[in-house]
Amino acid sequence: MTARSVRDELAAFVAERDWGQFHTPENLAKSIAIEAGELLECFQWSPDADTDRVRGELADVLTYCILLAERIGADPDQLVLEKLAVTRAKYPADKARGRSAKYDAL
Amino acid sequence: MTARSVRDELAAFVAERDWGQFHTPENLAKSIAIEAGELLECFQWSPDADTDRVRGELADVLTYCILLAERIGADPDQLVLEKLAVTRAKYPADKARGRSAKYDAL
Amino acid sequence: MTARSVRDELAAFVAERDWGQFHTPENLAKSIAIEAGELLECFQWSPDADTDRVRGELADVLTYCILLAERIGADPDQLVLEKLAVTRAKYPADKARGRSAKYDAL
Amino acid sequence: MTARSVRDELAAFVAERDWGQFHTPENLAKSIAIEAGELLECFQWSPDADTDRVRGELADVLTYCILLAERIGADPDQLVLEKLAVTRAKYPADKARGRSAKYDAL
Repeated sequence: MTARSVRDELAAFVAERDWGQFHTPENLAKSIAIEAGELLECFQWSPDADTDRVRGELADVLTYCILLAERIGADPDQLVLEKLAVTRAKYPADKARGRSAKYDAL
Repeated sequence: MTARSVRDELAAFVAERDWGQFHTPENLAKSIAIEAGELLECFQWSPDADTDRVRGELADVLTYCILLAERIGADPDQLVLEKLAVTRAKYPADKARGRSAKYDAL
Repeated sequence: MTARSVRDELAAFVAERDWGQFHTPENLAKSIAIEAGELLECFQWSPDADTDRVRGELADVLTYCILLAERIGADPDQLVLEKLAVTRAKYPADKARGRSAKYDAL
Repeated sequence: MTARSVRDELAAFVAERDWGQFHTPENLAKSIAIEAGELLECFQWSPDADTDRVRGELADVLTYCILLAERIGADPDQLVLEKLAVTRAKYPADKARGRSAKYDAL
């Protein structure tokens, strides 16, 4: 589970600033896309990037993901485990091993 | 902390399929942006979205975030907490309360 | 057609700086996603945005789109017209009128 | 100029389906980010991509860009040329030649 302490700290941070009003699911989804673009910018012209910069941008994406999960009443780790079960079925190890092809091209 | 079990399950899933070879930091950053776009698509024409669809897409963004964190030797929750400390300083509660303006416009 | 002058000016600009070496199709696709995120940021917390800011960010997305079209030997307007023909068939006016649903839900 | 015919055809296409109601600047910005993600997906695991697939996805990004330009009363080519003038000043050829560094690191 994403530590209760991380979720609590984030919740406190948001409440102190009365920012919950801006955190509609749609605004949070937009924010995730925006931060994902900033993370990608670390690699704009090269496959290599400054690790500290990547850490900071990845933190931003994760932060908004945790906020969105909270907003829709979901647990981040539960979401990942549930989706993993679905993906396991779509990509059986014997068929998918070593291949990056999409499931309908296996 | 993101449960050891989630990280371990993801690692096992990837290893079984020999997919680690595709998981360069750059490819993972691209994947996060791609999935962020699919999450945003839930809200393309409306501020409301089907919760199950949002859960599934959010799970995909989170999954690639956890994989990238692993790849660069970082702990997802540590990243978030570290960034929160930085953001706290940029947005003091007394100045930022109730305002969505960027820190250089407070 | 996107004016020969725009394409020529962009080409001259890139050549003067010897930047063509960075303009692989992949890097240009990453750049388009990055700039699309910056454009989206104009609307992060609100449906309204500063028009000048939107103009500038939209210009960046368009610039990289034109560069990518050039790189793959395509004409931007031709691409749009060709795709429009495909979309017309997917969304017949009588079925799609006034509805934002995807074509498989019409 | 982006051919009057392209803009007119797009406008007719939208009007026939009464889709203008969905084309707020915000929704169009979201759409551009969504399509940019689909374009990027062509390159998710490799620097090489199927050209026809790239043409189709690039067409989608361009289409929404043209629609947004129309919506805010701007001409796509004008936007690009205006921005180019700004970028020329930020990246003087003598300083920027052959370098992908950002303008504040030249």
